[in-house]
Amino acid sequence: MTVFSEDIEVQLAAGMDMEDITGKLESLVTASKIKNGILSATITGSTGSLTTIEHEPGVIEDLRGAIKRMTPPDIEYEHEKAWHDGNGHSHVQAAIIGPSICMQIRGGKMLHGTWQQLVAINHDNRSRRRKIAVTIIGEQ
Amino acid sequence: MTVFSEDIEVQLAAGMDMEDITGKLESLVTASKIKNGILSATITGSTGSLTTIEHEPGVIEDLRGAIKRMTPPDIEYEHEKAWHDGNGHSHVQAAIIGPSICMQIRGGKMLHGTWQQLVAINHDNRSRRRKIAVTIIGEQ
Amino acid sequence: MTVFSEDIEVQLAAGMDMEDITGKLESLVTASKIKNGILSATITGSTGSLTTIEHEPGVIEDLRGAIKRMTPPDIEYEHEKAWHDGNGHSHVQAAIIGPSICMQIRGGKMLHGTWQQLVAINHDNRSRRRKIAVTIIGEQ
Repeated sequence: MTVFSEDIEVQLAAGMDMEDITGKLESLVTASKIKNGILSATITGSTGSLTTIEHEPGVIEDLRGAIKRMTPPDIEYEHEKAWHDGNGHSHVQAAIIGPSICMQIRGGKMLHGTWQQLVAINHDNRSRRRKIAVTIIGEQ
Repeated sequence: MTVFSEDIEVQLAAGMDMEDITGKLESLVTASKIKNGILSATITGSTGSLTTIEHEPGVIEDLRGAIKRMTPPDIEYEHEKAWHDGNGHSHVQAAIIGPSICMQIRGGKMLHGTWQQLVAINHDNRSRRRKIAVTIIGEQ
Repeated sequence: MTVFSEDIEVQLAAGMDMEDITGKLESLVTASKIKNGILSATITGSTGSLTTIEHEPGVIEDLRGAIKRMTPPDIEYEHEKAWHDGNGHSHVQAAIIGPSICMQIRGGKMLHGTWQQLVAINHDNRSRRRKIAVTIIGEQ
């Protein structure tokens, strides 16, 4: 049994920018030489999140729309009254989507649907370099 | 330390159909002979999701209602303009709920609350046979 | 490779009370002596959830606001018609946020952002003692 750890980093713009990190994660699975096990990933930062989605421009825009309906940037946030940094909605969005994801490894490949990509999302109101900590555990 | 991998499959109707997969996962835990460890599960497919809920008809209907308020099927979706497959809302719903879940194994049992069942959800606008990849890692 | 299992418990008030459990989880990582691996945590109970957030009073209130917009306590819930326990919204909220989280361990420390705390949330309409099952797997 082996533990393989590595970080990946993505540079994301303000707003609700996101990047498809599927290829970077697949490269880590290959580097780990693990054939059978799990991949666990966590975005470290309170205004970032991880999920899966079909990474095409339409759906990305639709997800942005839904999250903005849930947490509109232009209503009053308690966070602002103390911190005045304009990102109360960013914190709430990230907490709802969640920071971590688990994927399964079989035959040295990370299983996912044909149209299902892993994405890192920056909810902050400024551009951020985001770190995603990845651990792969299993049998080589 | 042992790694046990297996898929489960569920046949789900269109809309927001869901199935209680607790029993199927418990059977895998028993088959794995793992007494102490974790169970990691991921639904492979961009319009499916996994979560826990009290699997009774009222709460199921209430979850459907909340998710429809978040992502109404009858508003305009950017995804439709390019793809015309009517499931823009399905992709968004699945990304918000999320594709993966982790449970803890103790004494050969998967811990969960009395009223807390694990469910696979099909958000797509057509019936789908959904695959859930499961890995159990721990000590036998 | 080692598996370390332990529960933590938190006493939470009704409504959407939450507690920062980061310190308790860090104590478990230290106790496990695991230097490199994953921490998997699941709240056992259908009206509880786990996520990460900046645990400051403003953001906490803002998350409560967003979740109440998604699942208002004062609309009609199907769950109530059968069960009359007033917590239909609690079940739905917990299913959307989700019961489990995974964190990465490096050099004996659990990685998280400076302002990113792990929180256990009680969505129920009465106070609850909540159990969170934790498994840490990795190399000592």
